[in-house]
Amino acid sequence: MVLLGSTGSIGVNTLIIAQRYNIEIEALIAGNNIRLLNEQISLYKPKMVAIANASDREKVNHPDVRIGTEGILSVIEESESTTVVNALVGYAGLAPTLKATELGKKVALANKESLVVAGEFIDISLITPIDSEHFGLWYLMGERPFSKLYITASGGAFRDWKIKKMKDATFADALKHPNWSMGNKITIDSATMTNKLFELLEAKWLFGTSKIDAVIEKKSIIHALTEFRDGSTTAHFAGVDMKLPIAFALREKVEEEILSPVNLLEIGALEFLRITAERYPIWNIKEHLLHHPHLGVVVNAANEIAIEKFQKEQCSFFGMSDLVLDAYKKFENVKPANIKEIIEIDREVRAYATHIS
Amino acid sequence: MVLLGSTGSIGVNTLIIAQRYNIEIEALIAGNNIRLLNEQISLYKPKMVAIANASDREKVNHPDVRIGTEGILSVIEESESTTVVNALVGYAGLAPTLKATELGKKVALANKESLVVAGEFIDISLITPIDSEHFGLWYLMGERPFSKLYITASGGAFRDWKIKKMKDATFADALKHPNWSMGNKITIDSATMTNKLFELLEAKWLFGTSKIDAVIEKKSIIHALTEFRDGSTTAHFAGVDMKLPIAFALREKVEEEILSPVNLLEIGALEFLRITAERYPIWNIKEHLLHHPHLGVVVNAANEIAIEKFQKEQCSFFGMSDLVLDAYKKFENVKPANIKEIIEIDREVRAYATHIS
Repeated sequence: MVLLGSTGSIGVNTLIIAQRYNIEIEALIAGNNIRLLNEQISLYKPKMVAIANASDREKVNHPDVRIGTEGILSVIEESESTTVVNALVGYAGLAPTLKATELGKKVALANKESLVVAGEFIDISLITPIDSEHFGLWYLMGERPFSKLYITASGGAFRDWKIKKMKDATFADALKHPNWSMGNKITIDSATMTNKLFELLEAKWLFGTSKIDAVIEKKSIIHALTEFRDGSTTAHFAGVDMKLPIAFALREKVEEEILSPVNLLEIGALEFLRITAERYPIWNIKEHLLHHPHLGVVVNAANEIAIEKFQKEQCSFFGMSDLVLDAYKKFENVKPANIKEIIEIDREVRAYATHIS
Repeated sequence: MVLLGSTGSIGVNTLIIAQRYNIEIEALIAGNNIRLLNEQISLYKPKMVAIANASDREKVNHPDVRIGTEGILSVIEESESTTVVNALVGYAGLAPTLKATELGKKVALANKESLVVAGEFIDISLITPIDSEHFGLWYLMGERPFSKLYITASGGAFRDWKIKKMKDATFADALKHPNWSMGNKITIDSATMTNKLFELLEAKWLFGTSKIDAVIEKKSIIHALTEFRDGSTTAHFAGVDMKLPIAFALREKVEEEILSPVNLLEIGALEFLRITAERYPIWNIKEHLLHHPHLGVVVNAANEIAIEKFQKEQCSFFGMSDLVLDAYKKFENVKPANIKEIIEIDREVRAYATHIS
């Protein structure tokens, strides 16, 4: 396989699963963590490697090191693997997803921005999501007709804060996720609930329905629920560990233990809580976005700029959603007809979001 | 279909579902509620009827009224229906289940004592359980290999009582089930947890495994959970209403709404609690019984006598489980080789349990 984002938490877990099933690693793509990349190179002996910055090239212990997006795309093009695992962060993950699917390769997709930005133009039949929530939905769904899908949210770092206090929350505060240890961007997106909005959009493309919603389940033990037309609801429980969705994304069938089962008697109380727009202002556009999913590119571009501004202390925590909602309103009439137009809109939204204050 | 136990809660719900799907009612079998039976006769126009006591025959508005077990068996024998719904209470349900399966008829089985007493000698391929718990397990299971099955218990009428106070509990107290409105026997069996013990035995026969357990879920919203080998656990949520398992027992596929789905945001907290032998002494024999399921006949016979004694104030609430555990110990070496021997053992256990004090 080709593994994009090998040094992040998804990447590291993917290598554990790949080793378990003797899946050959044809190429490793990483960002700036060259120390870990070198360890992975010596263990998995990839034929090709790509990294983010040319300035790190000399530090990488490999004869074939490519650089940046072009480097990544050339690796995918030259690879013989039929599977690409895309665990890149943010908009940067889109081009590799498009390249891989154009070549007819299967994409095990942890980069949720790919579908958020361009779901309409991606061949979904080649996509398997690496994600507890979508995996849970797929696991539950089977052949029965469903009437509604639910994914759960932990509620992020500020779920128990007074809303007044959230106004002064810092970047460091927002990184304190209660349940999951993940990268910075997704942890901020959890605190604003943007991550869950993106997952709803993903579910829309993956399962072809707008009958989807999210609820808070603070323990992150239940990841997804499916409401069937007959009146049954089923739920997927599993430990907070990405190895389960990764194993299923890499193998058609998994019949051996990947995780220990949840101990029902040790969970304590489980509860489903409403996601309110007061605490999570991004929730104001949820229904509109689900019915106008092509606007995902706008939300994503504005959100990436907002996170940068928040990190640089150029805006407050709630300033991020103000900025995204402002851009959403400004660009709500765009309707990209192809990938080229998506790229243009992304650029325009970023320029707009960078310059408003 | 032939409906045994038409005036009980399962019977009434079965008729609602039968009407919805235009299923013809060939025969109605009831006990003593002749008023309701007459209403059902005028609505559903069965060809044959059977009741418990000859003394009620004149009150029944039907030309063909049979009496007692022999009457029931003759109805099954003469019926053209391929499906028998058996919602009789207690040991009395066994003979009709055996007769129907011998004739190759499908049995939609709400009479759990049939499998408890004689599971080893019943053709399971003809049985579909009418039961939220086993329905839930079946709904969840699919083709994936499971490692453990769980059914839930409400905990019965005394789950929140001080154990000391339970010693003086009356029959009327035990009938106050917190969640379900059911017949007397099953409600008492809920308070002692014998109902859940029986359901574990049923699951053993239905699904061919001893890797089954029960936990308390006080709201009776989650009815069953399945732990899969990969580490996933799935759960079945549904309203407290038997129409869902009944519809699936009568139809191979159900793709329309039988119940409204559970409202996740209105459930409040859900929790799984251990069933303790202190509050539910019958739990002391759970593991032994699951590994010696042929002893179900002993537990059932002693339990039916115990309930009678408790109702007549000849024993206390905990006296019931004392009696069952005493009989279980006394008869733990019996091993019936056929139905005839089961009937003999049943008789011996009843005689023993009636005369000990």
